[in-house]
Amino acid sequence: MLSKSILGKLQKILGKNGIKSNKEELVCYSYDATGKSYLPDAVVFPSSEDQISQILKFASQELFPVTPRGSGSGMTGGSVPVQGGVVMVLNRLDRIIEIDSDNFYTRVEPGVITGDLHSAVEAQGLFYPPDPASSSFCTIGGNIGECAGGPRAVKYGVTRDYVLGLRAVLASGKIIKTGVVTAKGVAGYDLTRLITGSEGTLAVVSEITLKLLPLPEKIKTMAVLFDSIEEAASSVSAIIKKALIPRCIEYMDRASIDCVKDDFGFELTDNVEALLLIEIDGDSASVEKNFNELVKFCTNRDILDIIIADNSKEAAELWKARKALSPALFKLAPDKINEDIVVPVNKIPAMVKKIELMKKETKLFITSFGHAGDGNIHCNIMYNKQNPDELIKAQKAVSDLFSYTLELGGTITGEHGVGITKMKYLSDEIGREELQIMKEIKKVFDPKGILNPGKIFM
Amino acid sequence: MLSKSILGKLQKILGKNGIKSNKEELVCYSYDATGKSYLPDAVVFPSSEDQISQILKFASQELFPVTPRGSGSGMTGGSVPVQGGVVMVLNRLDRIIEIDSDNFYTRVEPGVITGDLHSAVEAQGLFYPPDPASSSFCTIGGNIGECAGGPRAVKYGVTRDYVLGLRAVLASGKIIKTGVVTAKGVAGYDLTRLITGSEGTLAVVSEITLKLLPLPEKIKTMAVLFDSIEEAASSVSAIIKKALIPRCIEYMDRASIDCVKDDFGFELTDNVEALLLIEIDGDSASVEKNFNELVKFCTNRDILDIIIADNSKEAAELWKARKALSPALFKLAPDKINEDIVVPVNKIPAMVKKIELMKKETKLFITSFGHAGDGNIHCNIMYNKQNPDELIKAQKAVSDLFSYTLELGGTITGEHGVGITKMKYLSDEIGREELQIMKEIKKVFDPKGILNPGKIFM
Repeated sequence: MLSKSILGKLQKILGKNGIKSNKEELVCYSYDATGKSYLPDAVVFPSSEDQISQILKFASQELFPVTPRGSGSGMTGGSVPVQGGVVMVLNRLDRIIEIDSDNFYTRVEPGVITGDLHSAVEAQGLFYPPDPASSSFCTIGGNIGECAGGPRAVKYGVTRDYVLGLRAVLASGKIIKTGVVTAKGVAGYDLTRLITGSEGTLAVVSEITLKLLPLPEKIKTMAVLFDSIEEAASSVSAIIKKALIPRCIEYMDRASIDCVKDDFGFELTDNVEALLLIEIDGDSASVEKNFNELVKFCTNRDILDIIIADNSKEAAELWKARKALSPALFKLAPDKINEDIVVPVNKIPAMVKKIELMKKETKLFITSFGHAGDGNIHCNIMYNKQNPDELIKAQKAVSDLFSYTLELGGTITGEHGVGITKMKYLSDEIGREELQIMKEIKKVFDPKGILNPGKIFM
Repeated sequence: MLSKSILGKLQKILGKNGIKSNKEELVCYSYDATGKSYLPDAVVFPSSEDQISQILKFASQELFPVTPRGSGSGMTGGSVPVQGGVVMVLNRLDRIIEIDSDNFYTRVEPGVITGDLHSAVEAQGLFYPPDPASSSFCTIGGNIGECAGGPRAVKYGVTRDYVLGLRAVLASGKIIKTGVVTAKGVAGYDLTRLITGSEGTLAVVSEITLKLLPLPEKIKTMAVLFDSIEEAASSVSAIIKKALIPRCIEYMDRASIDCVKDDFGFELTDNVEALLLIEIDGDSASVEKNFNELVKFCTNRDILDIIIADNSKEAAELWKARKALSPALFKLAPDKINEDIVVPVNKIPAMVKKIELMKKETKLFITSFGHAGDGNIHCNIMYNKQNPDELIKAQKAVSDLFSYTLELGGTITGEHGVGITKMKYLSDEIGREELQIMKEIKKVFDPKGILNPGKIFM
């Protein structure tokens, strides 16, 4: 519990509207998309880098935990204040400071909504590719914290591939500046990418410089329907092997399709077992050519049907169901474990088989969907945690899923981070020596352990 | 000086052919492309990760310095053993372990020549974009050490953008494994990019996993001649602003052109003051369209001529002069300072003006050329270090160049690293707090300071 004098000092730094400690507000900032909840002692809303700095300096003196967060859309508990203390909400730092269309970069504050940044740069003919499913409400600061991905990573990479530089506040309150505004820059160690994906445990990011691309001239979208999940999985690998890299290849199994059946603008017959949503972008000439080639390629495989979007409205309809999926799954069972494993693309068929087997063995409702183009499969295990039998089965299924993922040369987390939900599995992927180095790096940045404690490392 | 017993123990680890300590060999491994030379006490040639590990463990016990190196083509003294001890040559670890054309990655040992990797993957229809000018003799391990760039960075990024994972040996001799083989992966802190560009001061890399792309279907090349250096510089910025990103825009001023005049396959009239070498790649349809558009765009500017390469032989001829340039400069003066500053692309005209002014003021022979598409200008200051007046002028010119670069929002090193030659300027770009963090990270990896000591930090 924070003392009255600490709360008073915080209020002095932040002003009356910058801090809340009534129960209703604390509850609002106690959880994220995992549903896990821990009450903080206070919630602070800094509106400047200087306020962030003063809060952290004070926290380092008084030794209370500070958990930075954006919109709280994280999937692994990264922004949940497991040790109480202060939740630092960064949504008030929401300025797009600069969009430089000569040099293809933008400088933004951490509280900018990712989708708002998309719109702002697209209005200037520019493109920021990373697009997590939560882009209409998640923040760029949160994207930096988790190194967010999304469907376009198969062609365009993830958040880390676009971060050029950062301003960040250390636990001591000192402000650092990392990186450059250019593609090249090798002065000193790469602190920029070290902070990216560190889940708010190394520093609080206060300004972000992101690389932009020219907006692709044209996008074409298709949905391909299969009566066999294995055929869909092997098609993903075959498409990638053709060296014709779409900007996304999204995958949904039948269970996923059923969850959002009404959102599709076309009829789904009972024999549809899987669907691929494929999008190609680039300049008009090459998109037409590659799209037609891909349609022909798919037609020659063992498929049920291809639905081609003739315009952006039809494409948006195809995406509607995919985007509705993650929240819709909660309808199926009170609790859901959402894992974001990644396997090499040619191992997707093996992984799909494994998931089918898990369904049969556990009799749990398990769906799989996700960013098949980059091997990132979201496996959702639905259960009721009040039912001990289901709980045990679900936990065993996760553990099986992770060990098979690692056996196939994959990773236990592609874009959600470790947070609290994957802590106990991290050492299955990362060796003891490597974990030791990470913990020592944590001490370099935050010797007193006040920044987002209780995350990533056991 | 290393004792006989230490040399004996090293020979035991490495075998007779794995260590040299005769003067001739020591001289061969005492310098790099800066011409700076420091004699090591011994040169070791490990042929396995296990030998690297044994040597480093032993060095940590006996406290002698180990300086890892590939071909010694570095431009800032990164592989020069400034504190003596052992130079560790990694050229014997030169296997391309795996080229995975299903999943678009390759695993290689550090001693693989970059150009050999290019050929090997291209034979399978794959593409590894980073291509430092020294690619026919530099090694992938060295490229990781310095985070090498090259002309294609404007479209494709630099080495860091292709490193997916590493195996590396710590100063203690312990072996770590970082990263993944997939585009996504966020388990723990990003040690992969932290080691990339750390100039052999954090660990000795023993295996590298690199992302590959599909080989572009077509490449088209042109040279554009200008009678004004300012017009050439502003054309670069105008081309980039068109959002039609070529795979390279190389730039040469008149002084550079003169150095390699005979290598051009076409006549250069006296009024040519600058040249741009521009290359577009992609699939056939879009390359034709974009190339023609670019030719039209350039023709409408104030240019002297455009030379279009009609086939790959003619393109190779256009590149011949560019590639001959760096070594040819030594003909002009006994000593050369080669800086690799980067400025935002729309600041190139200002930087070019500054360099012209420096020429007039110092009366030194100064050339500028480089990767204009990404703002990376190689400014070469030619002088005779035996002449005290020239030496002072050259040093002042470097200092002026760096401070103007930083004023324009650039960086003092785009791809050469800090090594020893830029150590004293690093604090002009990187703040005290940031340098302190870097030094503490160095201690985490190498507490006894045996790995490539005397580099990067003053």
